[in-house]
Formats: sequence, structure tokens, C-alpha cells
Amino acid sequence: MTTVSAYAAPAAKAPLERTTIQRRPVGEFDVLIDIKFAGICHSDIHQAREGWGEAIFPMVPGHEIAGVVTEVGTGVTKYAVGDRVGVGCLVDSCRECENCKVGLEQHCTGGGVGTYNAIGKDGEPTYGGYSEKVVVDENFVVRIPDGLSLDVAAPLLCAGITTYSPLKHWGAGPDKKVAVIGLGGLGHMGVKIAHALGAEVTVLSQSLRKKDDGLKLGADHYHATSDPKTFEELAGTFDLILSTVSAPLDFGAYLSLVKTGGALVNVGAPEEPISLNLFSLIGGNKTLAGSMIGGIAETQEMLDFCAEHGLGAEIELIRADQINEAYERVLASDVRYRFVIDTATI
Amino acid sequence: MTTVSAYAAPAAKAPLERTTIQRRPVGEFDVLIDIKFAGICHSDIHQAREGWGEAIFPMVPGHEIAGVVTEVGTGVTKYAVGDRVGVGCLVDSCRECENCKVGLEQHCTGGGVGTYNAIGKDGEPTYGGYSEKVVVDENFVVRIPDGLSLDVAAPLLCAGITTYSPLKHWGAGPDKKVAVIGLGGLGHMGVKIAHALGAEVTVLSQSLRKKDDGLKLGADHYHATSDPKTFEELAGTFDLILSTVSAPLDFGAYLSLVKTGGALVNVGAPEEPISLNLFSLIGGNKTLAGSMIGGIAETQEMLDFCAEHGLGAEIELIRADQINEAYERVLASDVRYRFVIDTATI
Repeated sequence: MTTVSAYAAPAAKAPLERTTIQRRPVGEFDVLIDIKFAGICHSDIHQAREGWGEAIFPMVPGHEIAGVVTEVGTGVTKYAVGDRVGVGCLVDSCRECENCKVGLEQHCTGGGVGTYNAIGKDGEPTYGGYSEKVVVDENFVVRIPDGLSLDVAAPLLCAGITTYSPLKHWGAGPDKKVAVIGLGGLGHMGVKIAHALGAEVTVLSQSLRKKDDGLKLGADHYHATSDPKTFEELAGTFDLILSTVSAPLDFGAYLSLVKTGGALVNVGAPEEPISLNLFSLIGGNKTLAGSMIGGIAETQEMLDFCAEHGLGAEIELIRADQINEAYERVLASDVRYRFVIDTATI
Repeated sequence: MTTVSAYAAPAAKAPLERTTIQRRPVGEFDVLIDIKFAGICHSDIHQAREGWGEAIFPMVPGHEIAGVVTEVGTGVTKYAVGDRVGVGCLVDSCRECENCKVGLEQHCTGGGVGTYNAIGKDGEPTYGGYSEKVVVDENFVVRIPDGLSLDVAAPLLCAGITTYSPLKHWGAGPDKKVAVIGLGGLGHMGVKIAHALGAEVTVLSQSLRKKDDGLKLGADHYHATSDPKTFEELAGTFDLILSTVSAPLDFGAYLSLVKTGGALVNVGAPEEPISLNLFSLIGGNKTLAGSMIGGIAETQEMLDFCAEHGLGAEIELIRADQINEAYERVLASDVRYRFVIDTATI
């Protein structure tokens, strides 16, 4: 066991504070990663505050991890000391179910293990990226290509794959009109990736406050959804809309912006049930879909794609002692566009 | 103009009665069809009773029309006198919009014309299949293959295409598990078509009352949705679920029966908005979609498919003076599985 420094929430809704945790010995197929950067995802806050149900405390959040391998187990074949690597939302899965077999480990039905706020196969709680080091099975580690700096790569492990996977699956590409709802941590990566995939990209945001940013990130158009004219002008425009927000939307109104045969895909989701008139889907053969992060192989594919296209996240680098303040700013949508913790400050 | 006998609703919610209507002269691209059979679709009742908003009266319902060509215009190239033909839900469209150009005339944005309860391009109301004859542009007429009797072919023009189109689009076929919710006019065709496409078919019906029928129609399994065990046993089972009912369903429960990456497609739809927790879609990358009838070319494809596989509707043939009684029986789900009017009795 190795004792490492970490930032943890000692209890639900309590501020995070510096502490120490134990990391397991490096097993046969494990790699030990010296964490360099950890992104702050909105879902860290949901979980640390028990917004998604009972959680495990103390909790070390963080599933956007970028670092360097410092030790490998005797059976490890994929990574060597010195490799630049990342860890996302998952650190293990059953590897035998129908979903694991096809690379959809995020939907493992046999017992997937979250990077934190979960119980590992050793029966111990898992602790996330707000820490100095982590030990992870090599099959749940991805390689960060040389072209990507580790700090801007970290958020790709959740925000990148969460947007890349549905954009690819639902056909974002040349000659396709794609809208991204919300320009936050997820949305700004959605814009970058959809643009790099060759789509014509529109941002649909509450106001025009971030319009300049949106256009710089790769959007071709930017509309305020607080303006009712947006819904008139853009009726039947998009092949695909990716919603990255968790605010309760008027889904009928957004579906009216989708072309015949098109799709509205949600990666952010309101906690309360939505109200939907099914005629919004029937008239126009439309689709409302959901998507949750991505599998390990697809996460590697996304990192390679981002490196090839020079896509990192837009980040604000913070010290560990700024985490609690950063949480408040995330809740106030006051971040452009992802906080990343310099873990050397933990 | 030709005067023909018809059954019409003189006003909203009034019983249908025998009357006469005028059919336009046969134009250059028109065919005159001697109607032999007309199916009764649930939507006939919705419209005759103004359940879907203000309607045009007198109304001659009927968009499941099978008959024989008795006259053709000078420009007609596709049909000749004596041809066995059908007409479905559409008798015209703009032919120029993006949807018309790709064979999705049912989603015409430039002014599609319904077979009844609509205004034709000549400015006159359209009248449907509960009548002796109809004049239709040849581009909105389909051929009924010799292998299909006209009486059992009539319901295919709506119930057949409404289920065939989404089953094809969403990949029903060999090695796929498909469930059909509801065993009524649409559902029984859904079962037949999904089975003929090679899928393993399950009926999800409120009770087991029609189980023997369902298995005879081609279902491999039959479950009662009133039994909570159904939802436990079948969790994560289906690649595709086709809902043909308009009762308000618990969509979260039905989505739990869909496999990772699978779809629940609605062709029947409740009049009231549904409540949906989006996590039902996100967990499992699932899809909730809608589908509305099908285009003209796909309707022909469906008829050819049904003829090849010997699939007609299961019908109760009635006289025109039984239409009002039949409407009551449709509303009571007391029909196995489609009423078809012998139009010789009008």
C-alpha cells in the first residue's frame, strides 16, 4: 500500500479538504500513475453533494485524469514507465458481459467500477483523480498522444468522450448541420469535435454572452435560445442536436429544429422527468436519444482524433486549495471552460 | 365530374351515413379507381370525431384503399385499365421539397394532401375510401401484386406501411429481438412483418387474451404487461420495441426492456404528453423515436414484400351500413384485426 495526498469530501456537502488515502500495491496487470492534472466535472459536484443518491465518504472525486506511468506490474504489456496516460470514468468492469465484449464497458451489466464513489473488485472504495497517484488496471488506461499537453488533455477523459461518442454515432460530419445546446465544459468540446469532424456547427445558448468564444472554438453560427425568433428561423434545420445541459428544456421546441429523420441526443440530463408530446417525434420520423461517456477503445480513438486535430480543452488551471471555490463557480456557470487541478499543489 | 356514392360523417361526432360526392374529371396524370375495399383505421375515428382538431365536413374517411383502375389520363404511364392498385394516406405532395425528393412524401413541407379531411391542389376537399370510386394522380397510386387479395391488401396501405417502415429503418431482421406493444390493427401487421423480416418476435400486450392469435401470426413469445414479472424477466432483452398503442405507457419501464444501443419506436401515440426521465435513455445509449406511415416508393416496397411473404391483414369484412357499429367496436378494441368495408355495399 502507498499513502498519497488527496483532496476529499469528508461527508456529503462538506467542503473538500486535504487528506491522505491508501493506494493498492501495483498488481500484475496494474500501472501506477503519477497524476499531473485532474479536471473538475460537474458530476464531481453532484456526487460530492449526494445529488445523485447515497455516496461513499470520504470521497476523492476526479475522473478526468492525466499523468505519467511510474511503475508497471509484471504482466503489463501496453504501457511502460514514462508513458503519458489518462484515466476516465471507469477503472474496471466485468469484461465478460455482452456490452464489455463490444467495447461498451461504460454499460457493463456485470459490475463496472467507477473511478471514484464506487467499490473496487478488492472490496475497497475507489478514489479519484484529486490525488497524487493512482493504481489502475492497464485495460482501463488510455494513452495520451504526444501532440496533446496533459493539462488540456485531462478534461477529454470525460467531456471529450461524452461528446465525441454521440457525435460519431449519430453521424456528425461533412454536409451535416449540427447544433450544440450549451457552451460549458461538455458543450465547448462538442463544438470543437463537431467542427473537426467536418460538420457545420451552431451553438444554441441561452444568451449571446459567449458568442465570440463559440465562434473561435469552431462554431459557424451562434443563436440565443432566449430569443423566440431563434426557433422560427431554425425550424427543421439540424441533422443532429447534441444537448449538453441539465436544465429542463422544452424538448418539443428543440425537436422542431431537427430535420426529418434527425436526432436530438442528450448527454446532460435534467434530474426531473421531462414532458414530451410524442407527435414531436412521429411528425418527422425523429429521434430522442441518450448517450453516456464511451468505452475504453473509443476513448483512445477520441484522444487520437483530438491530437490529430489539435483539440484540447479550454481550461483554467487551479491549485488544489481552490477546489471548493471552483465548485461554486461551476455551479454558477462561471468557468471558461473547464477547471483543471494542478495536482502538484495537493 | 362524376357523382359517386359514399359514406360520410355530416358533422363532428355524427354517425356516418350514405350520401353522394363528386369526383373530379380524370386529368392528364390521373387514374380513376373503382374502389373494391376500404379499411377502417383508428385515425378515421379520431378525425371523424374531431379528436385531432378542427376537421372538414362532410367527411368521407378511408385511407386504406384497394381497387381496380377503370380509366387513365392521357399522360399516365405507370398504370393501365384493369390494374389492381392501392391508395394510402396521401394523394398529393409538393414534389419539390427536400423530403419529397428523397421519397418521404409523408413529411412534405410544401403542402402534402391527405386522402381525406384535406384540401386538394384544386382547392376542393378530399374524400377518402368509403366510396365507390376515387381519382388520384398516378404518382400517389401503388400497385397491389397479384399474390395479394384486394380485401386483405387494403389495410396494408396504412397499417402495413406504418409498421414496415420503422421495422426496416431500425434494423428488424435475423438475430434481432423485436417486441411489438399492442396486438391491434397496427400491431398484428407489425408481428407478421417483423417475423417475415427474420426477427425473433415478442408481443407485449396488456393481457394474454390474444396469445393464441399472436403466436399464429408469427410471434415467438407473448407476455402480459399487466404482470410486473414481465418487466423483470425481459429487462435488457430487445434490440427494438415497436409501440403501436396510443394508451399512455410507462416509457421508463418499456425502455428498461431495450438492450444497450437499442430503440423504442412509437407509431401509435398518446394524445397527452408523456413523462420521461432522460436517464432511461442515457443509461444504455438508448433511443426513443417516432415514425409516421411511409413514402410512396416504400409503400410499394412494402406491398411487394408482403406479397412475397404471403402477408395480408387479418380482417373482418363488413357492409357499409355496419360502419358506425364497427367504429364502436374499434374503440372497444373488439376487432381481429381490421375492419374492411366491402364497398360494393355502399
